[in-house]
Amino acid sequence: MTVYSTKLTLTSYGNRVTYHEITEQVKQHVEASGIKEGICVVASPHTTCSVIFEELSYDKDFYGYEYLQLDLNKLLENLIPDCKTQGQYHHPGPEHIRVGLEDFKGKISPEAYTMLNTDAHLKSTLLGTSETFVIENGEMQIGMVGYIYFIDWDQLRKRDRTCHIKIIGE
Amino acid sequence: MTVYSTKLTLTSYGNRVTYHEITEQVKQHVEASGIKEGICVVASPHTTCSVIFEELSYDKDFYGYEYLQLDLNKLLENLIPDCKTQGQYHHPGPEHIRVGLEDFKGKISPEAYTMLNTDAHLKSTLLGTSETFVIENGEMQIGMVGYIYFIDWDQLRKRDRTCHIKIIGE
Amino acid sequence: MTVYSTKLTLTSYGNRVTYHEITEQVKQHVEASGIKEGICVVASPHTTCSVIFEELSYDKDFYGYEYLQLDLNKLLENLIPDCKTQGQYHHPGPEHIRVGLEDFKGKISPEAYTMLNTDAHLKSTLLGTSETFVIENGEMQIGMVGYIYFIDWDQLRKRDRTCHIKIIGE
Repeated sequence: MTVYSTKLTLTSYGNRVTYHEITEQVKQHVEASGIKEGICVVASPHTTCSVIFEELSYDKDFYGYEYLQLDLNKLLENLIPDCKTQGQYHHPGPEHIRVGLEDFKGKISPEAYTMLNTDAHLKSTLLGTSETFVIENGEMQIGMVGYIYFIDWDQLRKRDRTCHIKIIGE
Repeated sequence: MTVYSTKLTLTSYGNRVTYHEITEQVKQHVEASGIKEGICVVASPHTTCSVIFEELSYDKDFYGYEYLQLDLNKLLENLIPDCKTQGQYHHPGPEHIRVGLEDFKGKISPEAYTMLNTDAHLKSTLLGTSETFVIENGEMQIGMVGYIYFIDWDQLRKRDRTCHIKIIGE
Repeated sequence: MTVYSTKLTLTSYGNRVTYHEITEQVKQHVEASGIKEGICVVASPHTTCSVIFEELSYDKDFYGYEYLQLDLNKLLENLIPDCKTQGQYHHPGPEHIRVGLEDFKGKISPEAYTMLNTDAHLKSTLLGTSETFVIENGEMQIGMVGYIYFIDWDQLRKRDRTCHIKIIGE
């Protein structure tokens, strides 16, 4: 039995939802792991990101969003409108802003407005922050048209995000 | 430590959402695996299916839908209306139709209309494509009333679908 | 390779949604497991609970709900209104009530009204009943501000709930 560990660093656009299509990278790590039978967990350590399994849609808009991404964005925007200013959602409240600017000074949020990402938190909760895939005969079981996406829902600042890949099996 | 691998083949109705209640089959494979402490991952390799954990609702409608399934169907239909024709959602766009009919000729979509399953893709993304269960003392920890369902959201054609079961532990 | 198993008992309020913040407990079990590289599955055996990964929001309302919890509650209440009486949802139907009161007499639902928790079932399905975390160098990879919550969506009666923690790795 083996545990294979790696992680990807993925940079977001900063001003809109970012989809990172990471299928090929995950597949290469499954191959490098040498694991023939097992599972592959792809997980975000951030609470404003998600990992999903979806078909690649071949048409793209001007921003580069695949059409299924556009449809998902619209669905979620209708449910969870972009957080434009304070008071729109309960979060972030005054104490949260204080903690972010003072207690975590320089570590998390450089400015108060960067904490107005309540929409990103709720989208991440709704879609989940990890997905688990099955490995059979050394291959990810994701079908002929399945792809893995790491989504960064945060639209307020450009950031390097981490995506963990953990492969367990034999 | 053992990895036990198996899969189920599940045939959809083709003209409406299909729920496959697979609890007993999963339990039998957990027993066959001999694993006493570990996890059981139930996963779809398809991007228009989901695996969920839900109570069995004893009343059924004329189609055989359990009442909790009816309530879930209605909730999701309100959020994600059935894709009735092109242009309703962004996906599938013209290039996607071309790729499906030409590049994947005979492999995926036999006719253009079968790609109008955008609703199924979005439902699958919202509910996820796998669920992980815990095994303790050789038994799935799913309570007295918990059941496992493999859902095929695609309403456009009858298909044999695969459901992967991977059990890891000792 | 090791499998470490434990569970928490968490008591709900009974008259409203209950969030149990269990991050520290999960971390302590990861340390106790001695596992340096692996995964940690946190799972509910109940079909009206969820496990989520979310930021801790420092402001709270009079009930003690963190502000992100308030925002999540409101989002879900809009989608899935509280089940106030029979007929509002399909579930629970007459046969389900009969089974709950007679076949499972004394084991599950002491009174018919306690089965009017359809909203809790649908919320649990939407958010999922487990989450999988990655362990690296002996530490849960949940970032500086990530927290683990076990949510009991059932608002009809106070109950002791079980939360399973399964840690696999080496």
